[in-house]
Amino acid sequence: MILEGRKFPITFLVYAEKGEPACRIADLCFKESYEKVIEECDIVTFEFEHVDEAPLQLAEDLGKLLPRLNSVVLKRARHLEKEFLKREGFPVPRFVTVEGGDEALRVLRDEFNNVGVVKKSEGGYDGRGQYFIRGDPDRYQFLREERGLFVVEELVNYDFEASIIAVRSGNEFRAYPPTFNYNEKGILVYNYGPYGNPEMIRLAEKLTEKLNYVGVMGIEFFIRRGKVMINEYAPRVHNTGHYTLDGAEISQFEHHLRAITGMELGETRLLSPSGMVNLLGVHYPPMDVLRYGSVYWYGKEVRRRRKVGHVNVVGKDLEDVRAKIENVMKLTYPNGLDL
Amino acid sequence: MILEGRKFPITFLVYAEKGEPACRIADLCFKESYEKVIEECDIVTFEFEHVDEAPLQLAEDLGKLLPRLNSVVLKRARHLEKEFLKREGFPVPRFVTVEGGDEALRVLRDEFNNVGVVKKSEGGYDGRGQYFIRGDPDRYQFLREERGLFVVEELVNYDFEASIIAVRSGNEFRAYPPTFNYNEKGILVYNYGPYGNPEMIRLAEKLTEKLNYVGVMGIEFFIRRGKVMINEYAPRVHNTGHYTLDGAEISQFEHHLRAITGMELGETRLLSPSGMVNLLGVHYPPMDVLRYGSVYWYGKEVRRRRKVGHVNVVGKDLEDVRAKIENVMKLTYPNGLDL
Repeated sequence: MILEGRKFPITFLVYAEKGEPACRIADLCFKESYEKVIEECDIVTFEFEHVDEAPLQLAEDLGKLLPRLNSVVLKRARHLEKEFLKREGFPVPRFVTVEGGDEALRVLRDEFNNVGVVKKSEGGYDGRGQYFIRGDPDRYQFLREERGLFVVEELVNYDFEASIIAVRSGNEFRAYPPTFNYNEKGILVYNYGPYGNPEMIRLAEKLTEKLNYVGVMGIEFFIRRGKVMINEYAPRVHNTGHYTLDGAEISQFEHHLRAITGMELGETRLLSPSGMVNLLGVHYPPMDVLRYGSVYWYGKEVRRRRKVGHVNVVGKDLEDVRAKIENVMKLTYPNGLDL
Repeated sequence: MILEGRKFPITFLVYAEKGEPACRIADLCFKESYEKVIEECDIVTFEFEHVDEAPLQLAEDLGKLLPRLNSVVLKRARHLEKEFLKREGFPVPRFVTVEGGDEALRVLRDEFNNVGVVKKSEGGYDGRGQYFIRGDPDRYQFLREERGLFVVEELVNYDFEASIIAVRSGNEFRAYPPTFNYNEKGILVYNYGPYGNPEMIRLAEKLTEKLNYVGVMGIEFFIRRGKVMINEYAPRVHNTGHYTLDGAEISQFEHHLRAITGMELGETRLLSPSGMVNLLGVHYPPMDVLRYGSVYWYGKEVRRRRKVGHVNVVGKDLEDVRAKIENVMKLTYPNGLDL
């Protein structure tokens, strides 16, 4: 976001430890005395919602947080988000909120015939804390001991997963075309677009309006026989929107900055079909990958399952994009994914 | 270039004064003890060729300078570049190299019938040190006192000016499509493409080969009735290639870094017709400009004629690009250009 934001006369102060990637390009990095820094800022935003609550709350209290805290609070527990979406009439998979793993397994048996997803309400991200149970509940008896809230959800037999990158400022809404997303073990592996259903854009507009949202939002969907359900939203720039750095005139990062600073929004059309492959727990890929696209290396320590970079590809058509993704996948994961 | 290069695992050490724009995002800025820093670097490159000679020479001596010094040396005086191009058989306007302004005016009268361009061989950039004489030599009598080498050149009655952004690595050559360039008083005001003549690409390939060039090169041409002449080349990323940040998958900046570090090159096709408007000696343009494109503000002090930013536009077709450029021009220069 800072790299894209350097074209604007904006100063970037980042709440991060020295040595984190953002600090190489920020005007200032801080972890101490965030109160003083936030008071100096005009606007406070975030690239990830599961962060220290105190600085977010302070920024909200000062009227500087965009997107506002209401969109973040719903993400602190899965049941809050799901109940909000259901209450507001959005199509979501059938689910029940329960207390404790024991009760979750009982509801799974009695109301879902032992086929469903049991999710811890708090602390989950990138597939963690989620258990896909397909008539084999005995393997999940360890959940009986777990406390806290759980969401038990139907296992949607979807045709594919898709997402939208939407942007909303005070009075404007825009959305990039939907993308097809390929996930494995709860982690996005690659995505490409345009691909999907215009209903997704209508739902994105309604959702951002309901939340009185300002900024970029990523919204994930399940698509089954042309029917669309919301899986979840992310109140920030989103992994499935990284391809906009190359496939669109204005990237999701620039659009987020435009929205939260009250600037005019720009075009969200794709200039050409495009996509992205995540670099998950691997070292810098072989140079041949550069034939097919642009490698974004984040400079993070490599750990298993960790997103340490991505490769953007742009094609003449979707077939070309898919072929490039396949080539990048083969070069990057010669022995297959290890997730 | 650094902003585009942050996607690579490259460390950027910049020869610049603290406070210059590059220093906000570089890993290190230095002006003192450049010897030590250059010795630590693997590769040394430049964004502008008219810079201190000693660090360039040292980098060349260590075999680290790319593009190599041979392409820079020719740019230190106009007659060196022109004589090289002529000697190598490239189409160039007719010219004569002379010593002193007095002799320049005599040659202009005797060999060019008092219609031509008198250029100081050294120290010119962005139209400085160039005099367009159209049968009115009396107004230029002040040149009689000037010493040093001059180039006297025919005044080409061209249909338009155009340029190519080429990139060459050890064994690969690529070129972005040509652009139409609109200059005023020797300064690029806007450009857009694709627009031009495939002959330009053939000449660019031949020129980069002759120079055994590595990196991105900008080459400016005059086009008259489909005939192409080289005006000059720039051994670096070029103002007429800024539009590649938005209109192409891989920008000229990324391609320069790929070429000089020996990485694979990528695509140079335009994803959509696109163009650029320079911000010349103006303050940050009105927000409405953001409707038409992306504003790149360099964070430099504003001075008359100075390039302090640019606006990239992308359109559905050339007509759309031209309309956007016109809108950006009107909003940016409501009282016309002051050059």
